[in-house]
Amino acid sequence: MSRFWSPIVEKLTPYVAGEQPKMTNLVKLNTNENPYPPSPKAIAAIQQSSQQHLQLYPDPNSDRLSQAIADYYQVDNDCVFIGNGSDEVLAHTFQALLNHQQPILFPDISYSFYPTYCSLYQIDYQKVALDTDFAIDPDDYKVANGGIIFPNPNAPTGRLLALEAVQKILDSNPDSVVVVDEAYIDFGGDSAVSLVADYDNVVVIQTLSKSRALAGLRVGFAIAQPHLIDALERVKNSFNSYPLDKLAEAAATAAIEDREYFEQSCQKIITDRETLTKELTTLGFDIIPSTANFVFVSHKTMKAEEIAQKLRNESIIVRYFNQPRIDNMLRITIGTTEQCRLLVTQLKKILK
Amino acid sequence: MSRFWSPIVEKLTPYVAGEQPKMTNLVKLNTNENPYPPSPKAIAAIQQSSQQHLQLYPDPNSDRLSQAIADYYQVDNDCVFIGNGSDEVLAHTFQALLNHQQPILFPDISYSFYPTYCSLYQIDYQKVALDTDFAIDPDDYKVANGGIIFPNPNAPTGRLLALEAVQKILDSNPDSVVVVDEAYIDFGGDSAVSLVADYDNVVVIQTLSKSRALAGLRVGFAIAQPHLIDALERVKNSFNSYPLDKLAEAAATAAIEDREYFEQSCQKIITDRETLTKELTTLGFDIIPSTANFVFVSHKTMKAEEIAQKLRNESIIVRYFNQPRIDNMLRITIGTTEQCRLLVTQLKKILK
Repeated sequence: MSRFWSPIVEKLTPYVAGEQPKMTNLVKLNTNENPYPPSPKAIAAIQQSSQQHLQLYPDPNSDRLSQAIADYYQVDNDCVFIGNGSDEVLAHTFQALLNHQQPILFPDISYSFYPTYCSLYQIDYQKVALDTDFAIDPDDYKVANGGIIFPNPNAPTGRLLALEAVQKILDSNPDSVVVVDEAYIDFGGDSAVSLVADYDNVVVIQTLSKSRALAGLRVGFAIAQPHLIDALERVKNSFNSYPLDKLAEAAATAAIEDREYFEQSCQKIITDRETLTKELTTLGFDIIPSTANFVFVSHKTMKAEEIAQKLRNESIIVRYFNQPRIDNMLRITIGTTEQCRLLVTQLKKILK
Repeated sequence: MSRFWSPIVEKLTPYVAGEQPKMTNLVKLNTNENPYPPSPKAIAAIQQSSQQHLQLYPDPNSDRLSQAIADYYQVDNDCVFIGNGSDEVLAHTFQALLNHQQPILFPDISYSFYPTYCSLYQIDYQKVALDTDFAIDPDDYKVANGGIIFPNPNAPTGRLLALEAVQKILDSNPDSVVVVDEAYIDFGGDSAVSLVADYDNVVVIQTLSKSRALAGLRVGFAIAQPHLIDALERVKNSFNSYPLDKLAEAAATAAIEDREYFEQSCQKIITDRETLTKELTTLGFDIIPSTANFVFVSHKTMKAEEIAQKLRNESIIVRYFNQPRIDNMLRITIGTTEQCRLLVTQLKKILK
């Protein structure tokens, strides 16, 4: 604390990101990155762009990328908003669309950045408890609110809310913005983008950090009707005119356009998730059905924290949350096929 | 306007960045970019990093870059804050350090993003008129305030405030944060970084977009005592954990470390600025002494707007501001030696 701080600074509880250790040779299954590299076309686009006028500002609106996303999802390009990672897109969304008189609603077990955004923009919120099986119940979102946000599939649970249930929440909240945070949707869920044409209150947020394997480049986007996108643009243009650099835009555009590579690498992860789920079950784990690139598990006899520590001793890092309701659970990212095998081998030793 | 907007959105007056036309073969002297490419070492660093695990998140703190800047300026690395362009660093600074009860102060002719940040964070401000010769008078900053910010050299004037005058402002405002926005300092000014050790209330903000020719990559930084940097970190970690991507960090680090290239390219621009200043004077222009990579000029007989239009007809774009006090002035970026020659040739024709 310093007397020079704006009053808000003291009240903040900054987000603590998953550990990014600088050692090599770790099996890093703690931050849900893609275990495979991005499309070779994305890397080629970077190498080409690196020679092209980096001394000039990028396109402030990232029009090429915006069009590629619009084409992919078959929406108009004025329904697309681009940001420096979906975290920035989320931040602008909280400020532009979720700051009203009533508290906003989100699940009690959810992306832990949400309460941080609320503290940054002084937004009241109310956590809505997930069911005992960690599912979102749409009926719980029938109370007065200033907006609703939830990840789908949810994180860290991995559990998907079916599109009909998302629609139920939208139907019962016609006067609230409902944000569906789809960071992990490409690993098995149906995107709410298909609802954008019919609902004037839905905002879908996605990232290129997971399914497109570009976490290192920071690209995220929102899709919604233009009147909502307009609010995001107004805030963005009052904050930073050029959030996306030239290389990130070029690589992201190439990654979106390379559908074949994208589908293949998602499929590999889905297949490995199903295999790993079976093997973990055999080892005595309870596993929440996942449509994400991670599984959320607890063991019938050994404590989560102990397993995490023992895996770490073998240079495998998984995510443990010391939080109510989930303090005996582990979130494990689906690594490469080989990393999944190595995990199972080590778990067998640890649990013997 | 939409009923879903947070109340703040309607009140915003978003910043309008200088035009970024998509045509080629323009002589683009309107947004103060460097006319020369970045250090070849920066480009090599991008090409190398493009092959290295782009699927993993970047270092959230950009430690390598932070250390390179600390080494360059001979400060501790906890005195350095990194952001996605100096615009993002400025935004966080307004929110973290300039939001107090009293209005903040900045010059009436200055970076036009400042009032926009104020509207975004609901900060009161008071504009302080520059002198008749467009200079900042430190005595004008002896009124009660919640903080002070000014570019040095100022933009769009290009005029430098001597370090002793900056010090005067700091001395008469021991209870306010004073932000010195040094986007253009490397083209002839002395940085206020040398004051950071002695003043607990100064924040110096710089960018790699101008002197390091990396506008396309979006990298900016602040240097201040750790208690001020801490406020920026708290806001940043409540907004976006990973503002800088891997390629931007790698390129920026290489650019900071390549001092020889940096000094040579700054020197070329300084030399061309002096030559251009003489030639424009001969052509009947009045020119404010500049230590930036642009000149701010008016012509004795022909209106600025008319000159701008006629240059545009010849595919040369300069910046015209339709604003009180400066509506007969043009801001002209120092291009390559050849672009400067071309500008003079065209001006000779236009003014004949």
